[in-house]
Amino acid sequence: MKKIESLENQKVKEWSRLKEKKYRDLESKFLIEGDHLIEEAQKHGIVLEVLSLEEKNYPVPSYLVTKEIMKKLSEQQTFPQQMAVCQKLESKNMEGNMLILDGIQDPGNLGTILRSAVAFDFANIFLSSSCVDLYNPKVIRSTEGMFFELNIVRGDLVSMIGKLKEEGYEIIGLDMLHGEAFEPENISEPYAFVIGSEGKGLSKESLELCTKFCYLPMSKNAESLNAAVCASILLYEMSKRRL
Amino acid sequence: MKKIESLENQKVKEWSRLKEKKYRDLESKFLIEGDHLIEEAQKHGIVLEVLSLEEKNYPVPSYLVTKEIMKKLSEQQTFPQQMAVCQKLESKNMEGNMLILDGIQDPGNLGTILRSAVAFDFANIFLSSSCVDLYNPKVIRSTEGMFFELNIVRGDLVSMIGKLKEEGYEIIGLDMLHGEAFEPENISEPYAFVIGSEGKGLSKESLELCTKFCYLPMSKNAESLNAAVCASILLYEMSKRRL
Repeated sequence: MKKIESLENQKVKEWSRLKEKKYRDLESKFLIEGDHLIEEAQKHGIVLEVLSLEEKNYPVPSYLVTKEIMKKLSEQQTFPQQMAVCQKLESKNMEGNMLILDGIQDPGNLGTILRSAVAFDFANIFLSSSCVDLYNPKVIRSTEGMFFELNIVRGDLVSMIGKLKEEGYEIIGLDMLHGEAFEPENISEPYAFVIGSEGKGLSKESLELCTKFCYLPMSKNAESLNAAVCASILLYEMSKRRL
Repeated sequence: MKKIESLENQKVKEWSRLKEKKYRDLESKFLIEGDHLIEEAQKHGIVLEVLSLEEKNYPVPSYLVTKEIMKKLSEQQTFPQQMAVCQKLESKNMEGNMLILDGIQDPGNLGTILRSAVAFDFANIFLSSSCVDLYNPKVIRSTEGMFFELNIVRGDLVSMIGKLKEEGYEIIGLDMLHGEAFEPENISEPYAFVIGSEGKGLSKESLELCTKFCYLPMSKNAESLNAAVCASILLYEMSKRRL
């Protein structure tokens, strides 16, 4: 392992830049923290470099760093023993049913949705450009390492929905004010669910483009559900239908 | 409205203490932030005092305060226009089905679970002593004001489960490793679901005391679900059974 002790080291500066979305986009790399995430990322062959507080063997270039360096790079109050630089995931062709996230802002919510998607075998996720960055450290932490096998694409919502409609997808907006009570039996394939943002729900664009709306039946005392809960219930229900 | 400008004012010191659980417990009071939460709390008659950045009429003692004071009291990066001191909720007698939270640590998860409980008409929540404080500002923010109508009791898990078992409750632990796949039809009333903590799942005590275990069927690629998602799916499924 190569030893790095200075915060001014060129490598440390490179890694540190990956805390910003701009540089993550430029270099197609991102940081992950802790053993568990590194193990999961290794299974998917995307780990490029490891930095560690202790001597250890890794199958990729690895660096022995100081606590000060780890502290500088970590987003957590208690910094981890290991971090890694990973290559961003490649998006495959989207085929089959899809979950479209329209402006999800909270990193914890996005991470939780991705974790539920893995749990309920739902592979295709589309993020509108207004969503929080997939490679935001808080998003990645909330997934608990469960998102590397998903097929995630980020892009323009309007053109994506347009394309899906041409291919005959049913575009189902989740909305408290429109449509019918959600019933898995009433959903025909291929379909895309559209989940709106935490504060504002579905965007104007989605409201115009959806071919159908539905809601989860709930108490009249309730105004809305957490966006991650709402998405997770849909995916759970659809997974039960497949059983 | 009485005007307060000094951070050293006795009232400001009193309010500021409510940022700590110790003083919230001592005085049976807690702080809430923002119009929406204050409105919800007023509906439930628990608002004791309001502090505001602007002159306004309130049916309770109210104080015109400075931005510096608001900033000192708020837990958010962007401080609100209004805050209020509320009286803690009174616990009513627990009757009917129950959700037991065994060591939930994340304030966002607890808030999300309470919000789902309101949405799916599930009134009785028991928090083990190891759970995060219900009146933690982050918990309250995550509920989006949807918890004032719930019946929430905090206490010793072992004696609570013991009491429920004597009353003939089925005690159903959610666990990835034990029991049968969750089926609403197989649950007999009265019942209590037990949801374990984010990191460790069910505590040793719960594992010993539950009368039944079940799990949500999921992909073999998934290790677990977010605790709030898990609890919300159960409550949603049970609410559908009642329809």
